[in-house]
Amino acid sequence: MINKENLTMVTDFYEITMANGYLENGMGDEIAYFDMFFRRIPDGGGYAIMAGVEQVVDYLKNLKFDEEDIEFLRGKNCFSERFLDYLRNFKFSCDVWSIEEGTPIFPHEPILTVRGPVIQAQFVESMILLIINHQSLIATKASRIVRSAAGRPVMEFGTRRAHGTSAAIYGARATYIAGCSATACVMADRDYHVPATGTMAHSWVQMFPNEYEAFAAYAKVYPENCVLLVDTYNVLKSGVPAAIRVFKELKPKSMGIRIDSGDIAYLTKKARKMLDNAGLKECKIVISNSLDEYIIRDVLLEGAKIDSFGVGERMITAKSEPVFGGVYKLVALEDEDGNIIPKIKVSENVEKITNPGFKTLYRLFDKDNNKALADVITVDGEEVPKEVGEDEGYEIFDPNAIWKRKTLTNFYSKNMRVPLFLNGECVYECPDIQDVRKRCEEQMKTLWDETLRFENPQTYYVDLSQKLWAMKEDLLNEAMEGMVNR
Amino acid sequence: MINKENLTMVTDFYEITMANGYLENGMGDEIAYFDMFFRRIPDGGGYAIMAGVEQVVDYLKNLKFDEEDIEFLRGKNCFSERFLDYLRNFKFSCDVWSIEEGTPIFPHEPILTVRGPVIQAQFVESMILLIINHQSLIATKASRIVRSAAGRPVMEFGTRRAHGTSAAIYGARATYIAGCSATACVMADRDYHVPATGTMAHSWVQMFPNEYEAFAAYAKVYPENCVLLVDTYNVLKSGVPAAIRVFKELKPKSMGIRIDSGDIAYLTKKARKMLDNAGLKECKIVISNSLDEYIIRDVLLEGAKIDSFGVGERMITAKSEPVFGGVYKLVALEDEDGNIIPKIKVSENVEKITNPGFKTLYRLFDKDNNKALADVITVDGEEVPKEVGEDEGYEIFDPNAIWKRKTLTNFYSKNMRVPLFLNGECVYECPDIQDVRKRCEEQMKTLWDETLRFENPQTYYVDLSQKLWAMKEDLLNEAMEGMVNR
Repeated sequence: MINKENLTMVTDFYEITMANGYLENGMGDEIAYFDMFFRRIPDGGGYAIMAGVEQVVDYLKNLKFDEEDIEFLRGKNCFSERFLDYLRNFKFSCDVWSIEEGTPIFPHEPILTVRGPVIQAQFVESMILLIINHQSLIATKASRIVRSAAGRPVMEFGTRRAHGTSAAIYGARATYIAGCSATACVMADRDYHVPATGTMAHSWVQMFPNEYEAFAAYAKVYPENCVLLVDTYNVLKSGVPAAIRVFKELKPKSMGIRIDSGDIAYLTKKARKMLDNAGLKECKIVISNSLDEYIIRDVLLEGAKIDSFGVGERMITAKSEPVFGGVYKLVALEDEDGNIIPKIKVSENVEKITNPGFKTLYRLFDKDNNKALADVITVDGEEVPKEVGEDEGYEIFDPNAIWKRKTLTNFYSKNMRVPLFLNGECVYECPDIQDVRKRCEEQMKTLWDETLRFENPQTYYVDLSQKLWAMKEDLLNEAMEGMVNR
Repeated sequence: MINKENLTMVTDFYEITMANGYLENGMGDEIAYFDMFFRRIPDGGGYAIMAGVEQVVDYLKNLKFDEEDIEFLRGKNCFSERFLDYLRNFKFSCDVWSIEEGTPIFPHEPILTVRGPVIQAQFVESMILLIINHQSLIATKASRIVRSAAGRPVMEFGTRRAHGTSAAIYGARATYIAGCSATACVMADRDYHVPATGTMAHSWVQMFPNEYEAFAAYAKVYPENCVLLVDTYNVLKSGVPAAIRVFKELKPKSMGIRIDSGDIAYLTKKARKMLDNAGLKECKIVISNSLDEYIIRDVLLEGAKIDSFGVGERMITAKSEPVFGGVYKLVALEDEDGNIIPKIKVSENVEKITNPGFKTLYRLFDKDNNKALADVITVDGEEVPKEVGEDEGYEIFDPNAIWKRKTLTNFYSKNMRVPLFLNGECVYECPDIQDVRKRCEEQMKTLWDETLRFENPQTYYVDLSQKLWAMKEDLLNEAMEGMVNR
């Protein structure tokens, strides 16, 4: 059903020049480890939501250079025939680990790791970043907006302002994972089972002599879902009165009005009263005008009478901060005996120094209330206790201020990553989107209110194990010496 | 070659509920006119760039409901079998007029008009908006960035931060139309002939024992385009010295260094001196770190020594303002005799009131210097003089302040729109992207510097003809009376 387009050529040109370069230098089969991670959460938020894993899986399953791709690359006159042959026989053979979709994620964590021949592990960088950056951006924004609505349904209405068709479709998918209840985008429903919804535009109303006739015509065709757009002329003077008349005359099974302009708090309070006075308490009020988490929070505080929200451009583009800055960095190599050689990328900016080596990510949860206490990144294979009781203790520390230490008790830990591919074979069954959405809802409950705050949230602890921290220090010192001597 | 995916189902659900509703109400064949226009220019700029027309043409040519689409819609249990039959036999039969790609466009102009049976003309709303909004957004942002670079090439490097694959591909296409010289996105080259470029990531450098070996290995494989990334460890202490050593030893035909972090003005001045002192005056310096038009303008003012720019996330997402707010509004109907009945959408917000009727858009150019003097929107069929001499005059006025009048002389006028489809048949041959890019470059020369200013530019005149203005006033008055009596 879904058009599984071959997206192999959606890649940065430098992935291909490097691939050819590695092959020409006899390094193509060297085993490398790359981590995807991000450095800051958009909008100054306290958490992000992982999304896009299913599309990464699809992409990697379908990696393949067609003859026309190879012909195209030959025309660039900078790749060897041996390399073009390599591409013709390209078969993905890497291991991939990832945090699952719908999970809260935090800066500096290895949210996805690829291990394999450097040509391959490097090549997939662009698309892995593109997919996860995009969907996590939109899921993170949607999560904020859904929370601001305080239990009221939020519908995704942004297709017309999305950055292209994949932004519309996968953006809608990401908002659904994060808790939206529906989308306007039909393709997102057909291909990804995000329920599509919608009723009428202003033009419907304009096509009839007046609102009453427009509404009555609609109610006759759609008695099951009769949401009437009441702001084509004047909400309170003409739109709501016409809607009330139609509701009373035709008694549709499900009634609603939608207001798409004007002052939300004022109009909804007045409209609610008019509807109630007409005995139409069951009629819902939908709002849809340049909404985001701040406006929704504010109008609800002002006592606006709203049953659900349609949110457009500010969610589908993550307008307030439309970039999720995930990066993909080399963190280790393997020597001929299979020993892992950690690698570090230094930078004058301390924030930009990478966490070296092949790592595992644990999340520690309070045994009593299941709240997330901290994440700990360890060297792979290192153990974090599965369970720690009241009388035991596990010490964590801030990797950027190691005197800040804390002993955690009474928790259980969870390895937060799952294998997606082993030796190029997919070993992960992507869960149904309903299950991803449920996981997200449940995982959100593990976060403290302090982390959920829109502005200046408490920074969630993401710590390094003592062993990883020491390894990083050693590599940093080594790199600094090397630089002086270079 | 290009995957012409059927995008028919990328549409808002309400387009389908309305379509079914029109059919059920016996109104499906009523002839309607819809205009696409926008109300403000992103970033407070003085102009926008039209882009995406080729994709609109592709979309409309490929409009078709597959059996699986129909099955999916049947499953929604709200559409009649008659309607599903209609969709099965759907054949696009509208007329479409549009401004051509690469043309500067301004608020309130009908940049695209669709005329045809209301079911169809309404249905295509979502995708037309999605395509034109996206590509015009990115082209407009790219145009600003290209201008800030003052003649130096700008490369589009944003694939990994684009909102999905179509954002990467069509975004790259839009930046190229607006004057960028290349993209990192390989697919944009394969399918849309935007030249792809790129050399190495930091990981290439990390894969070797030191920078010298990494650079030498690269130079041997790519002597024709040897741009070395010099900021993996330390630009001035290790990166540039290693690059100089390799350039002198291996003498690649084309030399460059790329700096992706740190203070651009300081580092490029120092690096330039080191390169010049080494006799490498031909070595280019490329910069690529979170750039936009403001940073580029500033570092050039600071005397940074830069030959070209790689611009990523801030261009491909139009980060400073990631929404192009184009809308699609009903502006007229036809009666049974084919007479055009103009329609207006009123609003309490004066800016949101539409320009009614079927219209034509003229641009008036100064005969001496070819500068654009004003745009005039007329009722279709109304004439604007093709040429006016020194002694003649043509009066224009501000539609929102009709006492502001101006008599233009010595100009020629151009109808700015071309037909794309007539009776559903495509009558437009999309120009080669090189020609679109050239058109854009030429059209940009018609704008005054005052309009090109980044902040607080002069507002370009977009006026209504006297006849159109009077028609609008009449309709407004009529609508206001109607509202009171409703």
